[in-house]
Amino acid sequence: MNPVQAALGRPIRLAVVGGAAPSLIGPVHRTAARLDGRFDIVAGVLSSNAEKARREGASIGLAPERSYGAVEDMIAAEAIRADGIEAVAVMTPNDSHFRIARAAIAAGLDVICDKPLTNDPLDAEALATAAAGAGVATAVTHNYSGYPMIRQARALVEAGAVGELRLIQVEYLGAGLALRVEDMPDAARRWRLDPAKGGPSLVLADIGTHAHHLACYVSGQNFAALSAEVGTLMPGRRVHDYAQVRFTLRGGARGSMSICQGAAGVENHILVRVFGSTGHIEWRHREHNHLLRADTTGMTQIYSRGSANLEPAAKRATRIPRAGHPEGFHEAFANIYADFAEAVVARRLNQPLDPLAATIPGFREGAEGVRFVAAALRSQDEGQRWVTLG
Amino acid sequence: MNPVQAALGRPIRLAVVGGAAPSLIGPVHRTAARLDGRFDIVAGVLSSNAEKARREGASIGLAPERSYGAVEDMIAAEAIRADGIEAVAVMTPNDSHFRIARAAIAAGLDVICDKPLTNDPLDAEALATAAAGAGVATAVTHNYSGYPMIRQARALVEAGAVGELRLIQVEYLGAGLALRVEDMPDAARRWRLDPAKGGPSLVLADIGTHAHHLACYVSGQNFAALSAEVGTLMPGRRVHDYAQVRFTLRGGARGSMSICQGAAGVENHILVRVFGSTGHIEWRHREHNHLLRADTTGMTQIYSRGSANLEPAAKRATRIPRAGHPEGFHEAFANIYADFAEAVVARRLNQPLDPLAATIPGFREGAEGVRFVAAALRSQDEGQRWVTLG
Amino acid sequence: MNPVQAALGRPIRLAVVGGAAPSLIGPVHRTAARLDGRFDIVAGVLSSNAEKARREGASIGLAPERSYGAVEDMIAAEAIRADGIEAVAVMTPNDSHFRIARAAIAAGLDVICDKPLTNDPLDAEALATAAAGAGVATAVTHNYSGYPMIRQARALVEAGAVGELRLIQVEYLGAGLALRVEDMPDAARRWRLDPAKGGPSLVLADIGTHAHHLACYVSGQNFAALSAEVGTLMPGRRVHDYAQVRFTLRGGARGSMSICQGAAGVENHILVRVFGSTGHIEWRHREHNHLLRADTTGMTQIYSRGSANLEPAAKRATRIPRAGHPEGFHEAFANIYADFAEAVVARRLNQPLDPLAATIPGFREGAEGVRFVAAALRSQDEGQRWVTLG
Amino acid sequence: MNPVQAALGRPIRLAVVGGAAPSLIGPVHRTAARLDGRFDIVAGVLSSNAEKARREGASIGLAPERSYGAVEDMIAAEAIRADGIEAVAVMTPNDSHFRIARAAIAAGLDVICDKPLTNDPLDAEALATAAAGAGVATAVTHNYSGYPMIRQARALVEAGAVGELRLIQVEYLGAGLALRVEDMPDAARRWRLDPAKGGPSLVLADIGTHAHHLACYVSGQNFAALSAEVGTLMPGRRVHDYAQVRFTLRGGARGSMSICQGAAGVENHILVRVFGSTGHIEWRHREHNHLLRADTTGMTQIYSRGSANLEPAAKRATRIPRAGHPEGFHEAFANIYADFAEAVVARRLNQPLDPLAATIPGFREGAEGVRFVAAALRSQDEGQRWVTLG
Repeated sequence: MNPVQAALGRPIRLAVVGGAAPSLIGPVHRTAARLDGRFDIVAGVLSSNAEKARREGASIGLAPERSYGAVEDMIAAEAIRADGIEAVAVMTPNDSHFRIARAAIAAGLDVICDKPLTNDPLDAEALATAAAGAGVATAVTHNYSGYPMIRQARALVEAGAVGELRLIQVEYLGAGLALRVEDMPDAARRWRLDPAKGGPSLVLADIGTHAHHLACYVSGQNFAALSAEVGTLMPGRRVHDYAQVRFTLRGGARGSMSICQGAAGVENHILVRVFGSTGHIEWRHREHNHLLRADTTGMTQIYSRGSANLEPAAKRATRIPRAGHPEGFHEAFANIYADFAEAVVARRLNQPLDPLAATIPGFREGAEGVRFVAAALRSQDEGQRWVTLG
Repeated sequence: MNPVQAALGRPIRLAVVGGAAPSLIGPVHRTAARLDGRFDIVAGVLSSNAEKARREGASIGLAPERSYGAVEDMIAAEAIRADGIEAVAVMTPNDSHFRIARAAIAAGLDVICDKPLTNDPLDAEALATAAAGAGVATAVTHNYSGYPMIRQARALVEAGAVGELRLIQVEYLGAGLALRVEDMPDAARRWRLDPAKGGPSLVLADIGTHAHHLACYVSGQNFAALSAEVGTLMPGRRVHDYAQVRFTLRGGARGSMSICQGAAGVENHILVRVFGSTGHIEWRHREHNHLLRADTTGMTQIYSRGSANLEPAAKRATRIPRAGHPEGFHEAFANIYADFAEAVVARRLNQPLDPLAATIPGFREGAEGVRFVAAALRSQDEGQRWVTLG
Repeated sequence: MNPVQAALGRPIRLAVVGGAAPSLIGPVHRTAARLDGRFDIVAGVLSSNAEKARREGASIGLAPERSYGAVEDMIAAEAIRADGIEAVAVMTPNDSHFRIARAAIAAGLDVICDKPLTNDPLDAEALATAAAGAGVATAVTHNYSGYPMIRQARALVEAGAVGELRLIQVEYLGAGLALRVEDMPDAARRWRLDPAKGGPSLVLADIGTHAHHLACYVSGQNFAALSAEVGTLMPGRRVHDYAQVRFTLRGGARGSMSICQGAAGVENHILVRVFGSTGHIEWRHREHNHLLRADTTGMTQIYSRGSANLEPAAKRATRIPRAGHPEGFHEAFANIYADFAEAVVARRLNQPLDPLAATIPGFREGAEGVRFVAAALRSQDEGQRWVTLG
Repeated sequence: MNPVQAALGRPIRLAVVGGAAPSLIGPVHRTAARLDGRFDIVAGVLSSNAEKARREGASIGLAPERSYGAVEDMIAAEAIRADGIEAVAVMTPNDSHFRIARAAIAAGLDVICDKPLTNDPLDAEALATAAAGAGVATAVTHNYSGYPMIRQARALVEAGAVGELRLIQVEYLGAGLALRVEDMPDAARRWRLDPAKGGPSLVLADIGTHAHHLACYVSGQNFAALSAEVGTLMPGRRVHDYAQVRFTLRGGARGSMSICQGAAGVENHILVRVFGSTGHIEWRHREHNHLLRADTTGMTQIYSRGSANLEPAAKRATRIPRAGHPEGFHEAFANIYADFAEAVVARRLNQPLDPLAATIPGFREGAEGVRFVAAALRSQDEGQRWVTLG
C-alpha cells in the first residue's frame, strides 16, 4: 500500500531547510511529509545560528549532530554518511530558494520547494534547467493541486466532460493583509512585506502563483497572454494586496483571476470554475471534498471524495475510500491520540493533566456507550418502553 | 509546541493490535498516532499467524522481532526491553477488546481502544474499574469528539451560550448496509455481520455509540432514560440497521436520535443540534470546520475552525490557526509529498514513474508561476496592456 | 395559459372568511388567490362585527355591500346575485372551520380551508363525507405540497427513482414558541394558545399536520400506525410544543417525525428525506428550489426548479421556466412595482415620498446603465483602455 | 397596510405595453404588478396587429375596447375616459422603449420600463431629462435591487458596517447563450440576437446593466472609470456573450465584474460582494433570503429575510415577517389555489380534471391529518404505545 516501504523497505531520508517556529508552513510541511510514512525527517537546517539550529532541530526530533547551521555543511556532512539524506525540502523565505535548491541539485539530491520557486524568473528558469540536467526529482508545493477533487476536475476536463474549453475563472481571496499588518507584523509575515525577501509583488507571489497553477493544472494548459491590474486596496500600503487578471490559455480559452489578500472577514476563499461547450465544473476550497458538474441538459452532479464513481487520479489521492469521511477525519482522530498522549505523559512524569486534555472519552465513557446499547435493546425487546440508565 | 517531545525528549512508544489490511480503521489509527509526532509505532500484533504478523508488521515499518503473534507475547517481550512499549492501541474486532485491554491494563500499560469498548456492559464496567484501579491512562476513539468545532460546541453549551438545555438531536446516517452486503461482504465488514464478534446490534455498536457519545459530550450530561425502536429496514436482514431513540438527559432535557446504516446514497451524515432556552447550535460532519449558533434575536453566527474568536478547547484542537485552511489541507499537502516520494523512488531504483504520480508541479511548473508574476507586473507597468508569455 | 380565463372568460368569484389584520395567513391567502389571476375576491366576512367587517373589507378592496358580518348572511345574499360567489376560502381560527365549511358545502359552494381541517376527527370525517356527497371541490392549504420540488419528489418516488420505500423522515422545527409567548401573545397566536379554539395539541395542529401531509404526499401513502411522544419543552407551559413520532406507512416503510415550535433561533426548518432500496431524495424548505437525489453508485443529482429535466407534475407548478430564477423573483420584481406605486400616489396626491421608497432605480439610474454599456464598448474598442464615465 | 388602497381607495390604473406570449418577462411584470393589489391592469398594447392585440388582451383579462394596437391610440383614448390609465408599464424589445416612454411622459403618465432603458445613451439621457421635466414618476425594473437582502446590504454599507469601501465584486453568469441559440431561437430571444433591436452588445444590455446597477445600488455610488474586455466565448458567434470589467467607484473603491451568458450548466448565478476596511458582505441570488456579513474579528453573521434584526429598508420590502418563510412560500400557496381553481372549473363545466391538478390535499386528506393528531395524542396518553390508524 505504501509504495516507498514496498520498494525501499524503509522511508526516504529527508532534510528540511527552514520552517522553525513561528513559521506556519513549517509544521504543515513536516506533517505532510510524515503523514503517509514515506519520509523520515533525519536532518535539517532550522537556523543559520548553530545553537538555535540545534535547539529547533531537537524540538522536531532531529539528532543534535544532524541539525546544521548551513545548507552547504549539511550537504557535505550527509554525503559521507551511509544513511545520508536523499531529498531536501525547502521552506525558507522566497529569496533563498534559489541558492538552496541549486546546491541540492548540484549534490544530486531530490528537492521539494515551497512556492514561488524563486523571486526572479531567470533564477527559476535556471533551476528548472539544472534539475532537468541533473535528472533529479523536483516538486513545488502548489498544494491545492493535491486535493483529490482538483485531480478529479483535471481528469474530467481532460476526458472532455465539459466539452471544448471556453472560460476558466479562479478566485483566491484572503484576509491576511486586511488589517495594517505593516504596523504589527508577526514573524511569519514580516519577511513577506520586504520585497527583497518576498519578491516584487506580495499578492502575486503569495497567492497569485497558487491561482495561476490551479488554472493551468485543471485546464492542462499554460497561459498564452494576460492583462493585469496589480495594486493596493489599503491606502498607504507599499506592497501589492490585490490583482485582477484577464488571460488566455494556449488552447484559446479565456480566463479571469481575482486575487486579494486584503479581503476583510474572508476565510482563505478559493474557487475554480471551468466552462466548456457542454457544461462546467466548480470547486470551492471550503467544500474541498466535493466537486460540482453541471451541463446544458439540467443535470447537476456532485462528486464526492471517496465515492465509487471517481477518476483514477482522484481515487489514488484519497486516503479514506468512503464518501462522507472528510479528510479532517484524520485530524479529529489524531486529536484523540494527541490528548491521550498528554495523559500518558502526565502519568509517566506524575504531573497534573491539563483539564482541556481531559475531555476525551476514556474507558468510563466507553462503558457508558456499551450501557446505552444494552438499554436500547432492552427497550425494543420490552415494547419500546422507557428504560432508565441507572 | 509538541508537549511529548518537550517532556520526554522523544515520542511515546506505542504498540498496535489489529489494523492489518484490508482494515479501514487501521491506517486511520496509525496516521492519527503519527500525525503530530507524539507516538512512535514500535511494536504490534497484526495477525495471530506469526508469519503473517511479521509480513504485515514490515509493511507498516515494524522491525521483524517486534511483530508478535499474540498480545501476551508482546507484553512479556516488550516488558524486558529498555525501549519497550509504553502504550497499546487496540483496533481488533469488538469481541477481543476486553481480553486485550485487560492484559494491557494488568501490565500497567496505557490503552487506547476502538469503540465500542466491549460487546457486553459488564465487561466494559470491569475494564473501566480495572483501568481506574491501575491508574493507567485510557481512551476510546469516539473520534467525532475530536473535531475542533465539536469541542467549541461543548464549550459553548457549558458557557450557557444557548441558555438552559431543552432538546438535543443527533443523526447518524450511513450507507454501509444499503446494499445486501451479507451476500458480498468485504473483509472489513464480515466480522461486523457476526453478532458473536460485532455484538448484539450492529447499528447500535457501530454508529449508535458514536451518536450517544456526541450527545453526552456536547451536552456534558449522561442519559437518564430512553425508549428505542431498534430494527431492520432491509427485508430479510438479520442484523439491525436502524434505530430511533427518544431519551432524556440527567439534567432533564429531552433528546432524539436517528441512526441508520441502510440509508442508500447517504455520505456518512452526522448532525448534532442542541436547543436551549435562548438559542441553539448546529454542527454537521460535512461542514465540520464550521459551527452555527443562532438565537431568538435573529443573530446567526458561524464559527470557523481557525478563527480568533473560539474557545480555548477548540483552539488547542486546531493545527492550522487560520480560518479557511480546512484540515484536509494537510492531506492535500501530503499528496504532493506522496507523489514526490514516488518520483524519488523511481529515480533511485531507475523505474518508470506512474503517470498518475507525474502531475504534481515540478520546477518547470514552478518556473511558469514565476513567469506569470513577471508578466502580470509588466502588464500593470505598461498600462495594463496584454502581454504574451512566450 | 390561464385555464380559468380560457374556460370561463373571467376569474372565479371567491369569498374570504377570516384573515383580517393582524392575521399573518390572511394576506398570504389573498396574495396566493390573486397571484395567477384565477380568482377575484369579491365578498367576505372579515369580522362578526358588521362595522369592522365593512372597514376591513374595504381595506382589501371589497365593495361595502359585499362585506358581511356572518357567513350565513353572505351565502344567502350572494346566492341571489347574478355575479354571486362560487367558492369560499376559510382562514378563521380552527374551531370555526367546521361550521363555515359545512354551510358552504350545503350551499353547493366549493371550499378551500386552512389546516387543520377541524379540531375533532369526527367533524373532519363529516366534512369530507358531506363534500363528497355534494360533489363540491375542496382543498386544504397544506401549502408545502405546492412547492414544485415537493411535487418532483412525489413524482420521483412514484416512478421508482429510489426503489422500494424503506424509511421516510420529516422534520419541522420552528421558533414560534421559543419565548414564553403566553405572557405576551400577539393576536395571531393568542387563539392558538387556547385549546378550545386551537385544538387539543398546539404543535400537532399547527405544524404536525403539515409534516404528516408531507410524509403522505411524497410517499403516496397514508400512515398505518404510530407511536408518539407529545409534550412540552418549556417548563410550565400548558400547550404542547414538541413531538417525536415513529410511524409505519401502509406499504410497510418506517418513518420518523420530529416537530417542535420551541426551537430557539430556528427559521421554520422543514426537511423531508425518503430512503429506498436504491437511493434517496432530500428536500429542505430553505432551499426549496432544489431537490437532491443520490444513489448507491455515487451519483448525486441536484434537480432545480425551472430546469428542463423535471417531471410534468413539477413543471406545471412552475411559473418561471428557467432554473436560477427562484420564486422570490416575483416578489423582488413586485417590490419595484410597489415602490413605484408609492411614487405614483405621492405625485397624484402631491405628497412627500417616503425616502425608503425612493431608492428604486428611475430613469436617471436607467440612463447610468446605458452609459455603462457605451463606456464598456468604448474601452473594448480602444484596446481595453480605462475610460472615465464623465 | 396597502398604501395605495389607503390613499386612493382603489388600485392605480395601469396599462401594459408588450409582454404577450411567449414573452418570459410579460407574466412576471403582470404578476408583480398584481401581487400587492396596488395596480389594476386595465388597458394595454399587446400587439401592433389590432386583432391579435385584442385576443392577447382578453387572455390577460382586458376588456376588448381597452386592448389597443398602438401606444399613441391608447394614450389618446384613455385620456378622455374618467377611469383612464394613470401609469404605463413598458416591456417591449429594447429599441422601442424610447418611443413609448417618451409618449407616456409627454402625456403626463407615470412610467415603469424594462431594462435597459434604451439602446442609445443619448436617448436614455433625453428620457431621464424629459421625465424630470414633466415631474412624472419613473422606474426601471432592475429587479434584483428589489430583493430584501439587497436592500439590507445597501443599508449596511451606508451605515458603515463594512467600514470604508475598498472593493466590490459582481458576478452574473447565465446559460441563455450556452447553446447556439442563433440556430434555434425561441421568440423571446430572437429580437435580442438582432443588434438593431437588442442593442449593440447583448451581454451588456441583457445582464451587464443588472450587474452595473447592483454595484451602484449596494455601494450607493456611481462608476468613475472602467476598463472592459467584451467579447464572445462561442466561436463564430456575432453577438457578445462575455465581458470582464475592472472599474472604480466615485469614492475611490475598486471593482470587478464578470458577466457571461454562455456559461453552460449555470443557473442564473448572481453574486455581490462588498469589501471594506473592517469586513465584508456577500449575497447570492440562489440564497436570496440570506445575507452574510463577516469581519476581521472572526464574526460571521447571517441575516435572514423576515428576522427581527434587519434594517427598515429590508423590513419594508418583506411580505412575510417571519424568517424561514421564503418568498416562494406565496407561489407554493398559490399552487394550491391554482389547482383548486382547476377543480372548481372542472366541476362548473362538468369537465374531467387534469390528474396532475388532482394531487392537492382535499377534505379527505384534511381529515387524515386530524386523525393523525388524535392518534398521536392517544399514543402519548397510553404510554407512547403504537396505535393503528384504522
